[in-house]
Amino acid sequence: MTFTVLSFVFLFCGLTLAQDDANANDIEINGQMQSVCSPDMCDLLIKFGAMGEKLQVIETRLKETETRLNNSENRLRNSENQIMDLINKERTKVIFSAAAGGSGDIGPFNTATTLIYRAVITNIGGAYSQYTGIFTAPVAGAYYFTIFYHSGGKYQGKLLLFKNNELMVMTHDHQSDVDTADNGGNAVFLQLQRGDHVYVRLDENCYVWGYEHHTTFSGFLVSQI
Amino acid sequence: MTFTVLSFVFLFCGLTLAQDDANANDIEINGQMQSVCSPDMCDLLIKFGAMGEKLQVIETRLKETETRLNNSENRLRNSENQIMDLINKERTKVIFSAAAGGSGDIGPFNTATTLIYRAVITNIGGAYSQYTGIFTAPVAGAYYFTIFYHSGGKYQGKLLLFKNNELMVMTHDHQSDVDTADNGGNAVFLQLQRGDHVYVRLDENCYVWGYEHHTTFSGFLVSQI
Amino acid sequence: MTFTVLSFVFLFCGLTLAQDDANANDIEINGQMQSVCSPDMCDLLIKFGAMGEKLQVIETRLKETETRLNNSENRLRNSENQIMDLINKERTKVIFSAAAGGSGDIGPFNTATTLIYRAVITNIGGAYSQYTGIFTAPVAGAYYFTIFYHSGGKYQGKLLLFKNNELMVMTHDHQSDVDTADNGGNAVFLQLQRGDHVYVRLDENCYVWGYEHHTTFSGFLVSQI
Repeated sequence: MTFTVLSFVFLFCGLTLAQDDANANDIEINGQMQSVCSPDMCDLLIKFGAMGEKLQVIETRLKETETRLNNSENRLRNSENQIMDLINKERTKVIFSAAAGGSGDIGPFNTATTLIYRAVITNIGGAYSQYTGIFTAPVAGAYYFTIFYHSGGKYQGKLLLFKNNELMVMTHDHQSDVDTADNGGNAVFLQLQRGDHVYVRLDENCYVWGYEHHTTFSGFLVSQI
Repeated sequence: MTFTVLSFVFLFCGLTLAQDDANANDIEINGQMQSVCSPDMCDLLIKFGAMGEKLQVIETRLKETETRLNNSENRLRNSENQIMDLINKERTKVIFSAAAGGSGDIGPFNTATTLIYRAVITNIGGAYSQYTGIFTAPVAGAYYFTIFYHSGGKYQGKLLLFKNNELMVMTHDHQSDVDTADNGGNAVFLQLQRGDHVYVRLDENCYVWGYEHHTTFSGFLVSQI
Repeated sequence: MTFTVLSFVFLFCGLTLAQDDANANDIEINGQMQSVCSPDMCDLLIKFGAMGEKLQVIETRLKETETRLNNSENRLRNSENQIMDLINKERTKVIFSAAAGGSGDIGPFNTATTLIYRAVITNIGGAYSQYTGIFTAPVAGAYYFTIFYHSGGKYQGKLLLFKNNELMVMTHDHQSDVDTADNGGNAVFLQLQRGDHVYVRLDENCYVWGYEHHTTFSGFLVSQI
């Protein structure tokens, strides 16, 4: 930088440095000696040089600032994407509870039948269908499901929770003439892919009680994967 | 930009361009021809012009940098708010488990009675009161509740989970002389508004077993809405 | 700023301001009066002054920009740390379900025995060991656990859920010749420290049914603390 200042000063003042015998501030213009490097002119030149130097410093600082800003913008973009991911995950709510509904016994039927829990209590995300009894995973993730049932003793109570075509957990109790009421339940965490089905089957010749929200099916998305 | 350089050069050097017959570097000052545009002076002027140009470029870059920084600051503020929302949601923990407690049968009573689970196991967020048996939602959201009970066969066991004045789910078993013990439970996801109450009623003339953490009431905030 | 412009103009033009009787644009160089402040030179000086002023403004703006950028970078760093915390929490998934497995009765044994649920259904995070039946909390937090069992009536069914050496919740039913099947379950939210153990004991002289995913043990990390 100092070199810059000097170069401007030498540019004019330096011209006569080799002419020690002449007036140091004089220069010949059209045959006449003139001071092109009067103290004031020198001052201007020094100031001009200093300004050039300052400009250089500022340009360097600006360049650094631009580089840092580029960097910050990239980091900010990355952060924004991560935040969107978190928000999207937080916003993806899949939570349902439904009861068997009806006014009394459901079943027995002579074949295993998907139990349709018709009385929806909660269905955030709409993944459970009260028309088919089937829960369809809207996103891949770990889900929790829990079932409870009540039944009389006249027939077996027997519910089987399936993931697609695979039995996951079950609950059942025996037919009994003396034990006139049974309760059962189960729960399970399942890793599901988007589109996987989870539903509950009432086994053949079994029944459950469909009144007063005794027999329920609930689930929620614990965590996307 | 080039125009700027030229304008400075023309400012001095250009003065004599129209005077082709005169010395191109001369200008008349007080009746004397003087070179105001000696090669060195021209060099200064060119440098001065270049500096002006450079300053213009820097000013433009700085303006762009300021604009980008304004933009980044706005985005950063937005991100910070979103992060605070996420952190606040993450920090809002409402999780409880309590057991009926006591040393044996609770009930039967001749009217339905809110069952006070006196033995708190967990009560993060303090939303469950062990003095009233009532859970009060501290924030709007989707909550999970689950109840389990054990009882003898001498009387009915019958628990009803209410949201405010509305029956949500229940569990019960019959009185029986031969089946001397009953178990039951249920679970439900509920959408609650801030201040909503959730509690469990022991139905009239029913009882549950209050010893050894058989009969429990648990819940947690799944997700704010 | 205006002062800067003026100071440059005065530097040259102002020299003669006190010499009102002389030609205002003249200055004596080597005994000759010369215009060092011809309108063009003045113009240059004004421009030079203006440039210095502009440079000053730009330097000030750059300094402000740098300060704001420093501030933004600090806030960004803070946001990035908060995002990493949230992501790490979101990524810490501890979710398991296991069934007792086997082909029929498990027990009775003449001492209380940790029930090993050998048929793992889900074990995200690997905190549950199918070899010991013990869940070990990988991080401090609030966890949910739930158990369900099925058994015959020949012996008592009795399961006790422990946190380290402390009984948390239990479920059981009586031996009965007429009630040939029993179901039970329970659930609890527990605050655990890293390394805490949670497991289920089958009480002495009790049994549960180990077939078809009737008897299960499930849990998940609700929230880190």
